[in-house]
This record gives sequence, C-alpha cells and structure tokens, in this order.
Amino acid sequence: MKKFINSVDSLLDETLLGFSKAHADIIKLNTSPNFVTRKLPTRQGKVALISGGGSGHEPLHIGFVGAGMLDAACPGQIFTSPSPDQMLAAALAVENGGGVLFIVKNYAGDVMNFEMAAEMLELPNASILVSDDVALPRNHSAGRRGVAGTLIVEKIVGAAAEQGADLAYCKTLGDSVNKASASMGVALRCCTVPALGHPTFALSDTEMEMGVGIHGERGRETLNLTSATEIVEHIAALIDEDLKPQKGQSVLLHVNGFGATPLMELYLIYDLAAQYWEKRGINIVRSLVGNYTTSIDMAGCSITLTLLEEQWLALWDAPVHTSGLRWGC
Amino acid sequence: MKKFINSVDSLLDETLLGFSKAHADIIKLNTSPNFVTRKLPTRQGKVALISGGGSGHEPLHIGFVGAGMLDAACPGQIFTSPSPDQMLAAALAVENGGGVLFIVKNYAGDVMNFEMAAEMLELPNASILVSDDVALPRNHSAGRRGVAGTLIVEKIVGAAAEQGADLAYCKTLGDSVNKASASMGVALRCCTVPALGHPTFALSDTEMEMGVGIHGERGRETLNLTSATEIVEHIAALIDEDLKPQKGQSVLLHVNGFGATPLMELYLIYDLAAQYWEKRGINIVRSLVGNYTTSIDMAGCSITLTLLEEQWLALWDAPVHTSGLRWGC
Repeated sequence: MKKFINSVDSLLDETLLGFSKAHADIIKLNTSPNFVTRKLPTRQGKVALISGGGSGHEPLHIGFVGAGMLDAACPGQIFTSPSPDQMLAAALAVENGGGVLFIVKNYAGDVMNFEMAAEMLELPNASILVSDDVALPRNHSAGRRGVAGTLIVEKIVGAAAEQGADLAYCKTLGDSVNKASASMGVALRCCTVPALGHPTFALSDTEMEMGVGIHGERGRETLNLTSATEIVEHIAALIDEDLKPQKGQSVLLHVNGFGATPLMELYLIYDLAAQYWEKRGINIVRSLVGNYTTSIDMAGCSITLTLLEEQWLALWDAPVHTSGLRWGC
Repeated sequence: MKKFINSVDSLLDETLLGFSKAHADIIKLNTSPNFVTRKLPTRQGKVALISGGGSGHEPLHIGFVGAGMLDAACPGQIFTSPSPDQMLAAALAVENGGGVLFIVKNYAGDVMNFEMAAEMLELPNASILVSDDVALPRNHSAGRRGVAGTLIVEKIVGAAAEQGADLAYCKTLGDSVNKASASMGVALRCCTVPALGHPTFALSDTEMEMGVGIHGERGRETLNLTSATEIVEHIAALIDEDLKPQKGQSVLLHVNGFGATPLMELYLIYDLAAQYWEKRGINIVRSLVGNYTTSIDMAGCSITLTLLEEQWLALWDAPVHTSGLRWGC
C-alpha cells in the first residue's frame, strides 16, 4: 500500500489535526468524541445543520462546515459511520434555539446511528435522508445510496437556514432537493482502504465499474472500458430517465471526482455531460467540477444533475465560507 | 491506460471546452491559438499578468485566471510549452495600458518561448522566472525548476497589480516572492502521459521518488517508502536549509497534491510540516492545502514554504475570484 501515513491507527487523528490547523480561521475540532464545528457563533434561533459519515470522502463533510452550510460534521473512521455519541455531542454543541437538522447519506450504519442520536437528543430535530444514486432502483430494499448529491442538499439547505428558515421548512426543502437530484458514478480503479491495504475489488486494465458507490463496493456491472463519450452517455441516460427533465428546465450539473482523477478528465466529462443535456434543451445554469465527494484514492467520477426550482438558484448562489466550498465571502 | 478520454489528440481541446463551459462566469476561452482570459474587462492602466505552460497541471494556470490573479493563461499541449504566438496573442488581447508581466516556470521550453513572445511584443513587458524547487541546487546549470511556488507568486503579484502597482513594482515583487519561496515534492506513483500510455518511470511497491518534478521526470533519488513523518522531515529539512527562516518569521505553508493523492493524506502531511516549523519557532500565519499544481494523475505531494514580508499578507488575503482559488468575492 502506497500512502502517506504513519500508521493505520493514527491516520484519522493526524488528518483531523492537520485539517483543524489548516482551517483554524473557519472551524474548530473537538476530540473525544470527534466533531468539527464552525469557529464563529451563529445567530440565535438558527436551525443547526449537522452531517457526518465515514471518513475518506473529504472534503465531504468536514470541509463543508462554515457559514452558509453545515454547523457541524461528525467524521467516523474510514468508511465507517460515526457513533451516536459523536452526533449527540455535536448537536448539543451547536444547537442554538432553532432545532437540529441531520443530513444523512442513506447507508445502513449512518441511518441507524443518526436515528439513535435523534432519539437521544431531547430537542426539536428532523432528518433528511439523501438517496441520489440512480445506480440502484428507487424501490431497492435498502433504498438508494446517498452520494455526491449530498453536497447540493447541504449547500441549498445551509443557505436557507442561514437566511432564517425554520426547521420544518429546511427539512421539506432538503427532501425536495434530494428528490430533484440524481447521480451515478464510474470507477477505473478502486480505492485502497488503509486497514485493508489493497484495492477492495480488482479491475483489469480494460475494465471499468459502472454505478459504483463511494465505499469501494462493487457497482451495477463491470464493463469494458470505452470512450469518455460512451461512458457519459451511459450515465446521463440513467440520470435523465430518473429525473425526466423537461425542455427549458434549469439545472445544476455537478461532475465529481473520486479522488484520483485529474481535473483535465473531469472537465472533459463535464463538456460531454453538458452536451448531452444541451442537446435535449436543458438549461444548465450552474456547474460544479472537482473532487468534492471522494472515495479515498479511487480513480473515477460521478455525474449529478439537480433540477432547480426557481428559488433554489439564489440559495445555491448565497455566500458560503467553508474550506471545501467558498464564494460570496 | 485507464483514463476518461475520447482520443489523445482531442483531449486538450475537449478539456478546455469543458473548462470554459463550467466557468463561463469567470473566463473566456480563445481557440486558434489557445488562451484563456478573464470574462470581465480590467481597469485601464492595470499591469496584465500572463502565465502559461504545458497542460496537465490544472488548476494551474488556467484555473488562476480571474479578478485578483492572472489576466490570461496559455495552455500548451500536455507537459509541452505553449508557443510564442499563443503568448503574443494573449498579451495583445489583455494588455490594457499598464504593460505585460509574464510569469514563467523555469523550464527550458517555457523560458525560450516566453522570451520570444516578449521580444515580439512591441509593448512594455517584463518576466518573472519562478524557480522554487529545492530538489535542484541554486547553482544547477539550467537553474532550479518552477513548481508549486508559482501559484504564490501569481496570487501575491496578482493582488498588487489589481491594486494599481506598476510593471516595475510587480516585477520586483514577483522576484522577491520567488526568492522567498522553496518547494520540494515526492511521488509514490508517477503520472501517465496520455500520448505515452504508461507511467513515465516505474516505482516498486516499496519505493518513492524524492525531489520529483511535475512533468513525470525522475527526482533527486529513489528511496524506500518510509513513514509520513520521515518523508516530511526529509523535505522540510531541505526547504529549511534553503530559506533559513529565523525564529518568529511569518510564513505561508502550502501542501500541494499532484493529482491522485487524497485530501486526507495532504492534511496529514500538513500537520507534520506544521509541527516541523512550529518546533523551530516559525509562525505559520497562512496555509493552503489541496491539489493546485498537479502532474496529471501522479500520486504524491509537495511542500512549499514562503517567508512572508509584512505587506505580502494583505496581498495574499486580497480578494481573488478564479475557478481554482476564490475568496473575498
């Protein structure tokens, strides 16, 4: 295994320490239990947004804590849900009279632990389950996975909360953004979980894994590696079929890298995805290209489309000041 | 070769097209010859900052075009200098009465072509040669290479130009920032240049390349892969020896990923580098961690230290609105 680490056991702590030093102007790190909060206090009565999940997806979620987005994030061990006590401690640290909204990617461990934290928290709270991955059907027994669309939910709901929306409004808004978002990913090379020491699954030099998740799990199918255009059309068709955007629909197009794919390739994918929807009369009004929801060192990418309702555009554009996303301030 | 591409020949054009679509609010792409300029016009009399070099280092340089940083960037083919006609066309497109300042990484091809462009340009101009790579000695025959320190020169000089500094001041400032910056990189896996189709050099599972450049060239030496702490201490010692920072010196610490190294590892490296200089009484006042000066899909990172003069801090903090770096606007 070729990684910059001292030991598998200390990796997360050392990473979080580096993160907290590099962004001391934006966030504070709490240890035992681990959670990250904003450095600056929030307005009394503001809904507190909390997310979290296994580590290895950075900048998601710790990189999205800050003004205009999350109030706290709970990093678990790599690809492992944080514990309810982390979530509860984070909630108690940031709750400020407006209740707590948990934003949870739909994975069994995360869902169970966030539910336990929600039950233990004796304060008004609600949860949004993000389930944007169209690699799995909507009627899949465990439901669809939450992947790169999570960032979009966090940004749009984060802006609403910052502007004074109440808990019920934020919850409904988040559910709506989730429903309006669809993602799918493809991997050229799987990630290496440090504790395992080798890629979770093997792909030959001529194979790719289509519909891959972000935890080194297999996807829908292993296919022969083909041209970027064919890959994008395959993914875009499934997203398009799921969301069924109408001509003239305003959308946000997000091309996300999984950690080891160069920006050059992500821009090329963006161009092809944009062409796909432009041809269909879809109006791409906002875009985001880069490594935002990663899977350690996986080579691959995902495409996310969000159908934007009119008022969401201003929420997307609203100021955000986090280490992972920053504009307007 | 596992990449998202349609063909080696069309890769750059498709990438640039995707880049120009994704960031149409910030930049404009000119083709034949290729260069990127700001979307919005600049103030009459402003010094025009132009950089460029081979592609494959994104976001450097095209991602640093925008308010507060570059006026134009000229992308060459992958790891290949842009041509003088690209630079000349870019200069004529953005010169606005304040003269042109070329910011050039010290590589033979880039230096030669920028010199030709400067000679052909019948307008006041100057050039800054960036040479921050301490992997090579200062008295090396071709001089030291320009690597991740380039971004820091571009940001600080970009802010000065935006604030009205003239050509001579910007040139002197850039030379000073270059002299005050030192970088060194290490690779765990070399990059694959698309036209070649395999890594430029091979490393075994237990080797790393110390003092590597950003073009897939070998570094100072091939060493056995060791702990992150030992790697950072090796690199930091060479940087420290070069810059000789005094106790209490304010510095900017930049940990740069080469394209395929996860943010987790970069933060861990940042923590170790910060510890190294904190122990020596150095005052780390600003930091930057992420993939900024990449080498396609190379797994590895570099550390850059810049000794900050007092007025440089405000220039670093000044608003910047590019696709690769953004704050304050």
